[in-house]
Amino acid sequence: MPSCGWLLVLSLAALTGIAVGAEGTERNCSLSPPYLPSTAVNTTLRLQELRERMRPLNISAYIIPGTDAHLSEYIAPRDNRVAFMTGFTGSAGTAVVTQTKAALWTDSRYWVQAERQMDCNWELEKDVSISSVAEWLINEVPPGGEIGFDPFLFSLQTQENYNINLDSSNRSLKSIPANLVDQVWTERPPIPPDHLTRLPDRVIQRTWQMKVDHIRNQMRDNPYEPTALLLSALDETAWLFNLRGNDIPYNPFFYSYTLLTMDDIWLFVHLDRVTDELKEYLNASCVGSLCVQLKSYDTVRDDLQKYVAQPGVKVWIGTEYTNYALYELITPEEKLMTSSYSPVLTTKAVKDETEQRILRDAHVRDAVAVIQLLMWLEKAVPEGKETELTAAEYVNNCRSKQKDSRGPSFETISASGPNAALAHYSPTEESSRRLTVDEMYLVDSGGQYLDGTTDITRTVHWGTPTDMQREAFTRVLMGNIEISRTIFPSGTRGANMEMLGRRALWQVGLNYGHGTGHGVGNYFGVHEWPVGFQTNNIPFRSGMFTSIEPGYYKDNDFGIRIEDVAVIVPVQTKYGHNYLTFDTVSLVPYDRKLIDTSLLSSEQLKWLDNYYETIRRLMGPELDRQGLHEEKAWMLKHTEPFMESGSSASVCSSSMTLIALAIALLQNII
Amino acid sequence: MPSCGWLLVLSLAALTGIAVGAEGTERNCSLSPPYLPSTAVNTTLRLQELRERMRPLNISAYIIPGTDAHLSEYIAPRDNRVAFMTGFTGSAGTAVVTQTKAALWTDSRYWVQAERQMDCNWELEKDVSISSVAEWLINEVPPGGEIGFDPFLFSLQTQENYNINLDSSNRSLKSIPANLVDQVWTERPPIPPDHLTRLPDRVIQRTWQMKVDHIRNQMRDNPYEPTALLLSALDETAWLFNLRGNDIPYNPFFYSYTLLTMDDIWLFVHLDRVTDELKEYLNASCVGSLCVQLKSYDTVRDDLQKYVAQPGVKVWIGTEYTNYALYELITPEEKLMTSSYSPVLTTKAVKDETEQRILRDAHVRDAVAVIQLLMWLEKAVPEGKETELTAAEYVNNCRSKQKDSRGPSFETISASGPNAALAHYSPTEESSRRLTVDEMYLVDSGGQYLDGTTDITRTVHWGTPTDMQREAFTRVLMGNIEISRTIFPSGTRGANMEMLGRRALWQVGLNYGHGTGHGVGNYFGVHEWPVGFQTNNIPFRSGMFTSIEPGYYKDNDFGIRIEDVAVIVPVQTKYGHNYLTFDTVSLVPYDRKLIDTSLLSSEQLKWLDNYYETIRRLMGPELDRQGLHEEKAWMLKHTEPFMESGSSASVCSSSMTLIALAIALLQNII
Repeated sequence: MPSCGWLLVLSLAALTGIAVGAEGTERNCSLSPPYLPSTAVNTTLRLQELRERMRPLNISAYIIPGTDAHLSEYIAPRDNRVAFMTGFTGSAGTAVVTQTKAALWTDSRYWVQAERQMDCNWELEKDVSISSVAEWLINEVPPGGEIGFDPFLFSLQTQENYNINLDSSNRSLKSIPANLVDQVWTERPPIPPDHLTRLPDRVIQRTWQMKVDHIRNQMRDNPYEPTALLLSALDETAWLFNLRGNDIPYNPFFYSYTLLTMDDIWLFVHLDRVTDELKEYLNASCVGSLCVQLKSYDTVRDDLQKYVAQPGVKVWIGTEYTNYALYELITPEEKLMTSSYSPVLTTKAVKDETEQRILRDAHVRDAVAVIQLLMWLEKAVPEGKETELTAAEYVNNCRSKQKDSRGPSFETISASGPNAALAHYSPTEESSRRLTVDEMYLVDSGGQYLDGTTDITRTVHWGTPTDMQREAFTRVLMGNIEISRTIFPSGTRGANMEMLGRRALWQVGLNYGHGTGHGVGNYFGVHEWPVGFQTNNIPFRSGMFTSIEPGYYKDNDFGIRIEDVAVIVPVQTKYGHNYLTFDTVSLVPYDRKLIDTSLLSSEQLKWLDNYYETIRRLMGPELDRQGLHEEKAWMLKHTEPFMESGSSASVCSSSMTLIALAIALLQNII
Repeated sequence: MPSCGWLLVLSLAALTGIAVGAEGTERNCSLSPPYLPSTAVNTTLRLQELRERMRPLNISAYIIPGTDAHLSEYIAPRDNRVAFMTGFTGSAGTAVVTQTKAALWTDSRYWVQAERQMDCNWELEKDVSISSVAEWLINEVPPGGEIGFDPFLFSLQTQENYNINLDSSNRSLKSIPANLVDQVWTERPPIPPDHLTRLPDRVIQRTWQMKVDHIRNQMRDNPYEPTALLLSALDETAWLFNLRGNDIPYNPFFYSYTLLTMDDIWLFVHLDRVTDELKEYLNASCVGSLCVQLKSYDTVRDDLQKYVAQPGVKVWIGTEYTNYALYELITPEEKLMTSSYSPVLTTKAVKDETEQRILRDAHVRDAVAVIQLLMWLEKAVPEGKETELTAAEYVNNCRSKQKDSRGPSFETISASGPNAALAHYSPTEESSRRLTVDEMYLVDSGGQYLDGTTDITRTVHWGTPTDMQREAFTRVLMGNIEISRTIFPSGTRGANMEMLGRRALWQVGLNYGHGTGHGVGNYFGVHEWPVGFQTNNIPFRSGMFTSIEPGYYKDNDFGIRIEDVAVIVPVQTKYGHNYLTFDTVSLVPYDRKLIDTSLLSSEQLKWLDNYYETIRRLMGPELDRQGLHEEKAWMLKHTEPFMESGSSASVCSSSMTLIALAIALLQNII
């Protein structure tokens, strides 16, 4: 699944194509009185209440970011303060309120949606850079004025970026830890009452005690001699204690922080969600270096401050996932130690043997669901009754029947024709297209399972693709294969190899406007950073899992993405040691009809045949086991080798010429 | 030519192999009295004098970096303060002196040399990181102590790195603008008296006035509204005024700074080196926005300080090449504007039409010299009288006879057998090996010409290479070809493509420990940053020139590097616009004997044949023009096409298999 950091250039251009915005569906604030569609939310009262709270604090503006206190990629409804304040429900936005104005910043994907959902209290701003927000603030806030923000919702980087942009403008930021929106949001959804759950032993190799020991060893070995480690990202605490929750849609996380010292373990959670059984599991009643002291989630700031006040302490934080509210407490500077990512995130990135085995297993079961979908669509689409939405429901339903299923890992992207040209599109009742044999179809979906998280994209055509569609699809596939088959030294960065995913497209002047892959793991968020192909990702090591997902998007026409998850494995080379390659664990064949084998090199064809052989070897028995005989036949048909049948289609074009030459030569000789 | 930022891992391991350090050539400070070879320099007196200068300043230590005030990659002898103080003459080192100790930090390439040249006043430290220097300082300097440094010799980054490492140690840096070494260096070489020279009109498209206008436009368009631009790197001022000098070996630079405002141009130089004719050329007698006001080189700090003291000014600096002495004057913060590179460096990186044409021309003449060398070696080596040194002299001499020659662009790397395993090796009387048909030979050399700078590496074998040598050479060549033939969108970074230079090596577990290329330009330094394949290089645009130079080094055995210069040119693609590729401008064939064509893809063979066709087309007429008929015949023989002759060697191995299959099939049919 494409990650949120992706470029939006393509989406912007493509948006115009699906604009369902018939007259009257968007607000018109230039009329008098303004025209508001029925989808617009009246925000007058809540704005008035927020402004009342701002006044006694002497702030001229208040910034409302779209994240949560753990800088999560997905947020719970109770953290969607932007939606509550503005009416706009898109997944990315920043709002700013002054006593007289209110503005929302969101990117091109959401401009139409924002015009439908906001009333005329709100301006829509289209440049989402912090410098654009800062410029607006400098215009609206008088010199000397202060701009309030909730430090729990700012990363260090965000705070620094605002600071740099406001610098020398004589306007300054003011940290206000008690969120003002929450104070006026009377119907704010509560924390879910569900208890936290521990993972079953069968999916675990390392107990939480082993993990704590391991992390403490890293602290001990660190030359800067940290005395404590503060964990803020929700997957850090979930990983450390082998616990899960369901506070955030699609993500098995629970609100939490951890402060780990050599002698103590403090776990900050909502205490009423911890059962007696869990307390026992966590050794919560004892005192000692392997006893977890349970603390109330809301006391993290107070307790951290008390810890930092002690002499000789030094707190290690990962700067990418620590909020400013905690960071600002760690003073003076010598009590702070930073790295981009905490040792938990870098340790978690490399899966142990059990994690690798069960994550591969989860992908086998997940492939069953996707094969079921593709087979069904092949039959159902020509009948003309299926839509993007029914297809999404179908695959979600197939997944839910697989062992250990815990629901989808993100909202299924089921996109036909021009809708697929939008990398982040998910169908709604309004936008859902009927599936036909005349359009390409892209389905990007994934599941959460107790043993692993999956994410796979296939693009298919049930009729006759154009030459351009075949060429683009084949070149996207070549990108996927070129990355997958590459051999590289351990420690190479994904960012330095990701051009292999683009090169075949570049060759003919095509490209895609998003990243090439992200980490995936064992029942965590579907984007498991910091593994992947982005510049801020950590170097690849054996045992990491990443998606590989090049694509191509033709505005108003079609979209192609081929996404597989692969595990990084050691490989034997002729001369060297410590070399790695990718082993694909997603097990669903590509649409044969869209592959122009004449473009593939013999190495690429060989890789493809090997991959199909692996699908047969692993999926055949699984489909048998599940009694899915028709699906097995479908799978076998779609994984026939390209090269071995002696069919001319399996031979690359340059070789064809050579063979023709050889034959001609031979005939002369004979 | 390999750049200094390269990794030294390979060199370290390889060094042991060429250690000519027979007993007695290195110092032995553990003996009593210590043993000193005749090559050691007595530094007792100069150290004593330096320490006397340190005392009244109350500094506990003094840092002596190995650079100059312009952070030049090459320095003049008068700036080699490390060599004067320590006796050690290697090109990389940092010295630190306290009242009781003295230490030199240098990397593995130079450890043996340092042990030969230093007396026992000096410790040799082998970890060259700033944190290692800082650790030593924290051990030697008492708490509260100050560490002196010459701010002219520190980059912003260096100063910051020391600060970070000394932070919370209660030791601090003290900026001392008057260099202490210079005060005790009575025989310090003077500034060369030579006049500055202007480039002839025939090599210029843009006059200095046009360049000044162009840069001022960039200042005007910048949203941060700088009022002045400070140029510190020597090639910045040289480029802006189309001037050259000869203050630094191999580099046509002269000591200078420029402060450019919207109304004034201040050029800081040694005034006695500017002739009346040059003054006229620079409009030095008028006052106005296109008149150059000549200022004494030594007043730059004072004049900058006066400028900064004015209200409403803001000085733009490129942080990579501005020294700390000037940076520290630009306060308060709102008077400073920074970018990594000045607009002069980024503008200069893209060559105009004339620059492109003449730089290509220079490479044609340069190739004549290299072809002369290779042809001569082919005949002379079997006779057994030639050495690394005589070969270097030969090519330097050939170059000197070419039109507009201005000498070599760096010290020629002429390396046989194990010596070539050291990426930076240059032969000395002591180390020079006899050339034989039993060893591989690597020659990395370049020329300065009025119209351009060149840099090329060829690796050859005059006897029978081993299979491993052929495979390694071929895979290095594949790397060179894969980068050269790649098509990419304008604005792609070299760092994101450089793995193409390594991929064929990685495939069999081989690699190299240095970068893959650097910018090259029109009569400047041979490493013309910020163009190249390193992470801090700027994105590629049409009109930039870069070297492409993958390699492979086998410790104690042989070294391979294949280096060409290429210009980035637009390319037509099937679907897209704004795509680029490389056009190789170095024009010397590779050693045929070392190419295993069965490893090459048909695309690679096709590229190779096209390249050889280009060599024939461009070098044939030039060799004719210079009356070099034997050389022309040699060139033609070495550029015969690989593919067209129908020889089986030209067909890739996988295709061979297919042909065999086809033939077998055909025979059955017939």
